[in-house]
Amino acid sequence: MGKARLEAFSDGVIAIIITIMVLELKPPHGEVLAGLPTMAPIFVGYVLSFTYVGIIWINHHHVVHAARRVSASVLWSNLHLLFWVSLMPVTTGWMGENRLVALPTAVYGLVLLAMALAFWVLERSIMATDGDESPLAAALGRADRKGLLAMAIYVLAIGASFFSTALAQIAYGLVALWYVIPSRGIERAVAND
Amino acid sequence: MGKARLEAFSDGVIAIIITIMVLELKPPHGEVLAGLPTMAPIFVGYVLSFTYVGIIWINHHHVVHAARRVSASVLWSNLHLLFWVSLMPVTTGWMGENRLVALPTAVYGLVLLAMALAFWVLERSIMATDGDESPLAAALGRADRKGLLAMAIYVLAIGASFFSTALAQIAYGLVALWYVIPSRGIERAVAND
Amino acid sequence: MGKARLEAFSDGVIAIIITIMVLELKPPHGEVLAGLPTMAPIFVGYVLSFTYVGIIWINHHHVVHAARRVSASVLWSNLHLLFWVSLMPVTTGWMGENRLVALPTAVYGLVLLAMALAFWVLERSIMATDGDESPLAAALGRADRKGLLAMAIYVLAIGASFFSTALAQIAYGLVALWYVIPSRGIERAVAND
Amino acid sequence: MGKARLEAFSDGVIAIIITIMVLELKPPHGEVLAGLPTMAPIFVGYVLSFTYVGIIWINHHHVVHAARRVSASVLWSNLHLLFWVSLMPVTTGWMGENRLVALPTAVYGLVLLAMALAFWVLERSIMATDGDESPLAAALGRADRKGLLAMAIYVLAIGASFFSTALAQIAYGLVALWYVIPSRGIERAVAND
Repeated sequence: MGKARLEAFSDGVIAIIITIMVLELKPPHGEVLAGLPTMAPIFVGYVLSFTYVGIIWINHHHVVHAARRVSASVLWSNLHLLFWVSLMPVTTGWMGENRLVALPTAVYGLVLLAMALAFWVLERSIMATDGDESPLAAALGRADRKGLLAMAIYVLAIGASFFSTALAQIAYGLVALWYVIPSRGIERAVAND
Repeated sequence: MGKARLEAFSDGVIAIIITIMVLELKPPHGEVLAGLPTMAPIFVGYVLSFTYVGIIWINHHHVVHAARRVSASVLWSNLHLLFWVSLMPVTTGWMGENRLVALPTAVYGLVLLAMALAFWVLERSIMATDGDESPLAAALGRADRKGLLAMAIYVLAIGASFFSTALAQIAYGLVALWYVIPSRGIERAVAND
Repeated sequence: MGKARLEAFSDGVIAIIITIMVLELKPPHGEVLAGLPTMAPIFVGYVLSFTYVGIIWINHHHVVHAARRVSASVLWSNLHLLFWVSLMPVTTGWMGENRLVALPTAVYGLVLLAMALAFWVLERSIMATDGDESPLAAALGRADRKGLLAMAIYVLAIGASFFSTALAQIAYGLVALWYVIPSRGIERAVAND
Repeated sequence: MGKARLEAFSDGVIAIIITIMVLELKPPHGEVLAGLPTMAPIFVGYVLSFTYVGIIWINHHHVVHAARRVSASVLWSNLHLLFWVSLMPVTTGWMGENRLVALPTAVYGLVLLAMALAFWVLERSIMATDGDESPLAAALGRADRKGLLAMAIYVLAIGASFFSTALAQIAYGLVALWYVIPSRGIERAVAND
C-alpha cells in the first residue's frame, strides 16, 4: 500500500516536472522567423531535459519496483530525489537562454550530479530497509557502475563548462544517449522479477 | 504492474498538458469588450487542442489496455509520444496569437503529424513486444487506416497553410471531428476484450 | 479497468485545475500593505472557485462510483465536463481583477452554468450506458432537482450581474454554500452502495 | 474505494503544489552572478516550503492509511487542508522576495498555522467517522502533542516576525527539521498496521 502511494506521488511530481518545462518554451510574439535562433537552443535544452527526466522516471520505476518495504528513510530519500528533479525546469530555462555562459551550464550539470547522487542514496535506503533479502541489491551491479561513471562525467563536464560550454553540453547529451540506448541490459536484469 | 504505472504516468502527463493550455487563455486586463476579438481565435484554438489531447488520451487508453507486456521500447515510445503532446500548449498559443501567419499554423500541423507518427510507433512497439499473441494486432485495422489517412491530411494541411491558414485550420478541425464522432466503431472493436 | 483510468485522469485534471488557480494569486511585489485591497477580492474569488471545483470533484466521485460501464459517450461527456471546469482559473482571475464590471461576473456564471449542464449530460450518459440496471438512476432524484435549481439560480445571477455584480457574486457564493453544507443527504443516499 | 480516490486526488494536488513552487524560482535573465544575492533567499525559502509540503504529504499518508471509512466530513476536511497547502507557493514567493519585511514572514507562519489546524481537524473528522473502532485514535498521542507544540511555536514566530523576521524564519526552519529528523517514532507506531 505504502509503495503504491509512493509510486503514485512520485509519478505525479515527475509528470508535472516533465511538463512544466514546456512553459519555458514561450512562443515568439508576432515576429515569426526572427524568433527561431533564440528558440532553437531552448528547444534542444528542452529535449535534453525531457530525456533526463524520462530516464529518472524509468529508473525510478525499476528501483521502486524492486523495493519490498517503504520506511521513513525511503520516503525522505525519495522526496530528496524529487527535490533535485524539481530544479530541472529552472536550470533548463537558464542554460537555454544563456548557452554560451559558463555558470548556467555548470549549474545544470550540478543538478544532474545531485540527481544522480540522490538516486544513489535512494537505492542505498531501499537496500538498507529490505536488508539481506533485498531484491534490489541482487539486481543492481552493472547499472550501479554506470551511475558512478555518469557522476564522474558530470564532474568533468562541470569543470569543462568554464572553458567550453559546448563541450559540457555535448557531454550531458552523450550521457543521456548512453542511458536511453542500451537499456536492454537493465531490462533483461529486471525481467526475471 | 509495469502497465499500471505506465498508464498512471501517461494520465498524469496528459492531464497536465490538457490543463496547462488554459494558461495561454489570459483574461483581458481592464479593457473588457475590447479584448474579445483577440480572445476568440485563442479560445477556438484551445477548444481544438483540448479535443486533440482528449482524442490522444482516449486512444492511448484503448491501445495500452490491449498491451500484454511493457518493454523498454514501449516505455520509450510512450515517452516519445508524450514529448510531442507536450508541445501542444506552445503551438496552440502560437497559432492562437497569429492565426493569419503561415508558420505557426504549419508548425501546429507538424506537431499533430509528429503525434500521429509517435502514436503509430507506440502501436508497433506494443505489437512487437507482445509478438504473435498481440491482442492489439488483432484489434487494429480500421483504426490504423484512419490514422494513416489523418497523417496524409496533416501533410496536405501543412502545405496549404502557406496559401491559406484558414484552410489548414479547418482541416485540423475536421480531422478532430472525424475522430470524436464515429468512435463507436473503435469502441465496438475493443468491447469484446 | 476503464473506470479506474477515467477516475485517475479526471482526478489528475481536477487536481491541476484546483491548484493552477493559485497562480492568479500573485504576491504583491515590494509594496506590502498597499497590495491588500487588490488582493482581497482575488482571494475571495479563489476561495469561491476552490469550493466549486471541490464540489465538482466530490460529486464526480459519487456519480462515477455509481457507473457500471464506461462507453465512448461517457468518456467524451467526461472530457466535456473537464473542459468547462478547466475554464475556472481564467474566469476566476478575470472576475477577481474586475469585480465591479458586469461582463467578467456574467462570464463566471456562464461557466458555472455550463459546468452544471455538462455534469447533467455526464449523468444522462452514464445512465444510458448502464440501461435499466443503472444504480445512478436509482440514487439520483433529490440531487438532480438540486442541480436544476442551481442552474436556474445561475441564469438569474447572470442576468443580475448587469445590474449589480455584488448580487450575482453573492448568489454564486450561496449556491456553493448550499452544496457544501447539507451534503449529508447525498451521502446517505449513496452510503448503501 | 472512496479512500483510494481520496488518496489519489490528494497526492495529485500535493504533487502539483510541491512542484508549482519552483515556478517562483525564475532563472536570472542575462546578468549571471548579479542575480545570486536575490536568488539565495528565494532558494532557501523553496527548500523550506518543499520540506513542509513533504511533511504534510508523509503525515497525510499515515493518517489516511489509518482511516477506515470516508465520510462527507472527511472529504471536506481534506479539501480544507489542501486549500491551505495550496497557498504555500504564494506565501513562499512573497516571503522569498521580501525576507526582511514583517508581513510576508507573518503571513507565511499564518498559513503554516492554518495547515496545522486543518490537519488537526482532518484527524478529528477521521476519528469521528470511524467511531470507537478508530485505528487512528489508538495510533495518535505523541504525534498529536507534537502538532499542538508546533502550532504554539508558529503563534510565537508570527508575533516575533514583527520584531525580527530572521528569528521567525529560523523558528519555521527548526520546526521543519524537528518533523523530518525523528520521524522514526511515528513510523514505529504505525508499523504494526
